[in-house]
Amino acid sequence: MQPKYLPYFAETIENITVAMGRDAIFPCVVNNLTNYKVAWLKEETHSLLSIHDKLITRNYRISLSEAMDKRWTLRISSVQESDTGWYMCQINTVPMLSQKAYLHVVGVKLLPESPVIMMNKA
Amino acid sequence: MQPKYLPYFAETIENITVAMGRDAIFPCVVNNLTNYKVAWLKEETHSLLSIHDKLITRNYRISLSEAMDKRWTLRISSVQESDTGWYMCQINTVPMLSQKAYLHVVGVKLLPESPVIMMNKA
Repeated sequence: MQPKYLPYFAETIENITVAMGRDAIFPCVVNNLTNYKVAWLKEETHSLLSIHDKLITRNYRISLSEAMDKRWTLRISSVQESDTGWYMCQINTVPMLSQKAYLHVVGVKLLPESPVIMMNKA
Repeated sequence: MQPKYLPYFAETIENITVAMGRDAIFPCVVNNLTNYKVAWLKEETHSLLSIHDKLITRNYRISLSEAMDKRWTLRISSVQESDTGWYMCQINTVPMLSQKAYLHVVGVKLLPESPVIMMNKA
């Protein structure tokens, strides 16, 4: 049972597989946040992406689609291969609470010179 | 040569060795910060410690002794063995800029039951 006065994760963040060019969404749901803060980081590079309702990264494809109350949802638009990796949601308790999920990016982006295949109804 | 419109680190952060119970200070000096933000993180745990002039961690031994203009200085008071590790200063450019330094903690804390050695002037 969680103590009432400390935040805790209400849901587990699931690993996701997203086709290149589509959007990835990671919801971080927290109960009892009170005046603690939620941050999103990319684990491999230790990059801070957001803190509370403020987006920190200047990567224009990253945004917070929800940032209030219980839901702190990270959105990565038009995913690229370089977005692959672990994304961590953390709460500034002592000790710090965190959970993470993996973004797996699949598919090959069509090159501009790729032939367009026309389908004719037979 | 650094472009004028992007931040860059003006100094390298040095690794330090600190006796247990003393304070550790890591200065992060940045030129051309403009409206970018400086964050401090503890690398091993991916813990966000501070962003800009806001302290995020609730570890009461951690503070920002300077947080303005060019100097963003992290202070860890009364260091403990668990403070050992890499501390990263990062700037939210794309790609993110970062540098890090290692805190090595030495010495053994006296146990309460340790005998007190009295020194007499001969």
